[in-house]
Amino acid sequence: MPDQPTAAVLIIGNEILSGRTRDANLPYIAERLSAMGIVLAEARVVADREEAIITALNACRAAYTYVFTTGGIGPTHDDITARSVAAAFGVPIARHPDAVARLERQYVTGGLNTARLKMADLPKGATLIDNPVSGAPGFCVGNVFVLAGVPDIMKAMFDGLNLTGGPPILTRAISCFVTEGGIAGDLAKIQNRFPAADIGSYPFFRSGSFGTTLVIRGIDERAVEAAAAAVRALIESYGAEPIEQGP
Amino acid sequence: MPDQPTAAVLIIGNEILSGRTRDANLPYIAERLSAMGIVLAEARVVADREEAIITALNACRAAYTYVFTTGGIGPTHDDITARSVAAAFGVPIARHPDAVARLERQYVTGGLNTARLKMADLPKGATLIDNPVSGAPGFCVGNVFVLAGVPDIMKAMFDGLNLTGGPPILTRAISCFVTEGGIAGDLAKIQNRFPAADIGSYPFFRSGSFGTTLVIRGIDERAVEAAAAAVRALIESYGAEPIEQGP
Repeated sequence: MPDQPTAAVLIIGNEILSGRTRDANLPYIAERLSAMGIVLAEARVVADREEAIITALNACRAAYTYVFTTGGIGPTHDDITARSVAAAFGVPIARHPDAVARLERQYVTGGLNTARLKMADLPKGATLIDNPVSGAPGFCVGNVFVLAGVPDIMKAMFDGLNLTGGPPILTRAISCFVTEGGIAGDLAKIQNRFPAADIGSYPFFRSGSFGTTLVIRGIDERAVEAAAAAVRALIESYGAEPIEQGP
Repeated sequence: MPDQPTAAVLIIGNEILSGRTRDANLPYIAERLSAMGIVLAEARVVADREEAIITALNACRAAYTYVFTTGGIGPTHDDITARSVAAAFGVPIARHPDAVARLERQYVTGGLNTARLKMADLPKGATLIDNPVSGAPGFCVGNVFVLAGVPDIMKAMFDGLNLTGGPPILTRAISCFVTEGGIAGDLAKIQNRFPAADIGSYPFFRSGSFGTTLVIRGIDERAVEAAAAAVRALIESYGAEPIEQGP
């Protein structure tokens, strides 16, 4: 899909790689970007190691319109996202006065200790991202948006961003109780007839039967609808019923 | 953790990047590797595009002991993992006789069509990975293990692999209803005292209260236990109760 802005998500966190925590942020960001017409081209999970973060960040920020990072912006010793982003951009860390003011408002009854103040030490030139949940802001440098790892806070931060999307990506999803291998040959022909639509095929096993979900995506409405109609006709030609799914 | 084998997971699938499907494979592989003493150093989700798969695969197979890919080994036009792996290794695709034999056994009553036979077209030199669920095998080339995307099949394939692990990675996880920012300063001191243990701090919000889970990991049992004891004492010094979590 040309002309679409692109994005990468960088999940920073040992807890995901160790298997202790299941990431809940990628599905949310992926769905929201899709609705905005932004193509999520890649996602990476990296450890809490500065070199790993810098390498992944520099690869992604050069390749895509937007990069969203999650995690590692808290007050503890393992929160190293801000200094890693600064190093990736080659800028120093500086205490951000507005971030300090926000933390002072959050901890108005006391508790703004040295560790928490570290959350105001941001890459020089960063702009703040609002945190309506717990005060401590995210931040943006260039095309990189640095968000919290706690899902409720990440979502609130993400929803407040002002991103420029592209033409909406239309999706038609149609399931059927025909096996993938059964329709694969004819499906490839439909894909070849409609290059402007992107047809994905996903097998499933449900209620004791094998089936397939066909997902048709694209920005060209005519191509998407025509490909979807062809997929429905293909399913019916096998004596099966096309079951429309949500977008 | 030096001397540990390392790994990367490569999730191949537009459906994850579009937000339609939530990946269930990474948490499983992450947990199992951890139990085997293999450090999962990074994970990537890439689109069903050959160049994207080749780039990610070549980066990861050079950097880590093992690479596990999931997805894209079915019979449809969007299943391009085998040819992408072949291209990454610079070897041709060849029909694998034993894979054909397995498919013939699976489709003994008919149905082994051209599309399904494509699942036997593998990178030259590949060895097969058993698929006890639906017959069509995964495969291994060099240090790259190519697994199915459907979680039940992926798990069955993974569980049949014979991987060389490292010393077990010990984990102690201790939760408390003390905020992260409250203990961050003292926690950093504990981390400095026990460099052989890796202390992660994860805030949570539960039953209306903020709390923190401290996760201590490492292969040096003495260091892990000593760091865990110091963490428990720290929590108690705040008048809170250390709550032991599962490993």
